[in-house]
Amino acid sequence: MAIVRQTLIYDGPGGPFEGVIAWEDEVETPRPGVLVCPNILGQKESDNKKAEDLAKLGYVALACDVYGQGKRKTRGSENVAEYMNMLDADRTLLRDRLAASLEALRGFAAVEPAKVGAIGFCFGGKCVLDMARSGLPILGGVSFHGVYDRPDYANVSPITAKLLVCHGWEDPLATPDQMVALGRELTEAQADWQIHAYGNAGHAFTDTALIQPAAPGVAYEPRADRRSWKAMSDFLAELFL
Amino acid sequence: MAIVRQTLIYDGPGGPFEGVIAWEDEVETPRPGVLVCPNILGQKESDNKKAEDLAKLGYVALACDVYGQGKRKTRGSENVAEYMNMLDADRTLLRDRLAASLEALRGFAAVEPAKVGAIGFCFGGKCVLDMARSGLPILGGVSFHGVYDRPDYANVSPITAKLLVCHGWEDPLATPDQMVALGRELTEAQADWQIHAYGNAGHAFTDTALIQPAAPGVAYEPRADRRSWKAMSDFLAELFL
Repeated sequence: MAIVRQTLIYDGPGGPFEGVIAWEDEVETPRPGVLVCPNILGQKESDNKKAEDLAKLGYVALACDVYGQGKRKTRGSENVAEYMNMLDADRTLLRDRLAASLEALRGFAAVEPAKVGAIGFCFGGKCVLDMARSGLPILGGVSFHGVYDRPDYANVSPITAKLLVCHGWEDPLATPDQMVALGRELTEAQADWQIHAYGNAGHAFTDTALIQPAAPGVAYEPRADRRSWKAMSDFLAELFL
Repeated sequence: MAIVRQTLIYDGPGGPFEGVIAWEDEVETPRPGVLVCPNILGQKESDNKKAEDLAKLGYVALACDVYGQGKRKTRGSENVAEYMNMLDADRTLLRDRLAASLEALRGFAAVEPAKVGAIGFCFGGKCVLDMARSGLPILGGVSFHGVYDRPDYANVSPITAKLLVCHGWEDPLATPDQMVALGRELTEAQADWQIHAYGNAGHAFTDTALIQPAAPGVAYEPRADRRSWKAMSDFLAELFL
């Protein structure tokens, strides 16, 4: 088995965008695609690694870019939330950039375009929820320590994308009350949804760059990381059956 | 592979008790044991089937009895909650009967006594939580559409049993607020816990006898049934590693 990756530059509103796509090279038939939505920092190597991990599960995965080519942050950057805040302030633009990223994935030769899903981390979890809320053509999505505030446009109804929400109980950006509100929102939108809440885990529980906590309730947590990845694997297997 | 089952009669306060134990007969070494805690109706064939399903996963499983030999109900019984209510009114007695059931399992020759867990349905989910709360020697437990009210004795602290709580969002016996309270309780007790909430599922979502709903929010739900069983399988595999 050989996992390969390739830089993918694609167009969209505010583009060009630059992502990295990974797949198993020895398979010759099209297979399901998964969009990987980055956290606050934007497209980076840890997202590419997640794309490779998805490729090992048999999918074609695109670690996408919604900020624009070259627009990247690190934990030490000044104004680390700059690009995220711009999209948080314009959820319609975020939606349209997600749509462009999804089309880049669906148009890739190795991808079966009718079988596409998405996963995302932190702000990327919100991206996954927004893809479902806005009716973009994903069969399902997984949010890891996502943020749950609703966009200013109305949800499609019903939401047809199946959703798995992996939630850290101690997450200061997504409290238990906000988690319950999300459950109510998704129920109202008639979605097929699950929320997995992990005790003792906070925001960013999948982020191995945060073995030293970045702030109270913001840290890597190995059990929640391992369990949520397994839950995602089971979920995608069911989704693409 | 041959799954065998055997009636097991054992002692305890208010006993004798009569359960059914199932295991894979061709394995010769001791293996992990799982106690199966029945719902409101008490020990019955559907619990024995769950024990067989656990035996297929490689465990020895005892579908236990906490009401006492011959004390059984069906959905059509008068005073269907009679035996359950007696134990709900005496959680210390319930704990002691669970301890007796656990000892019956741990004493069975094919069981590795240091590797024991528990699962339970409805009232049986409460039984699993009470085993953890009272410090009975289980490594972990899974509650399916359990009920979350606390016993009148104090939790051990920390709770050492790992817990997976499979929760139907529409369950009238366990509301989202009660689910959140359980998360707080288990966090306070320093337990390693997960809650999986399933949208569109109510109480009794695993119960194939309730394909016709028994009451609003009380019905079989195939997706939550399938997903929670898979989550349990993953959980037990991690528990007994």
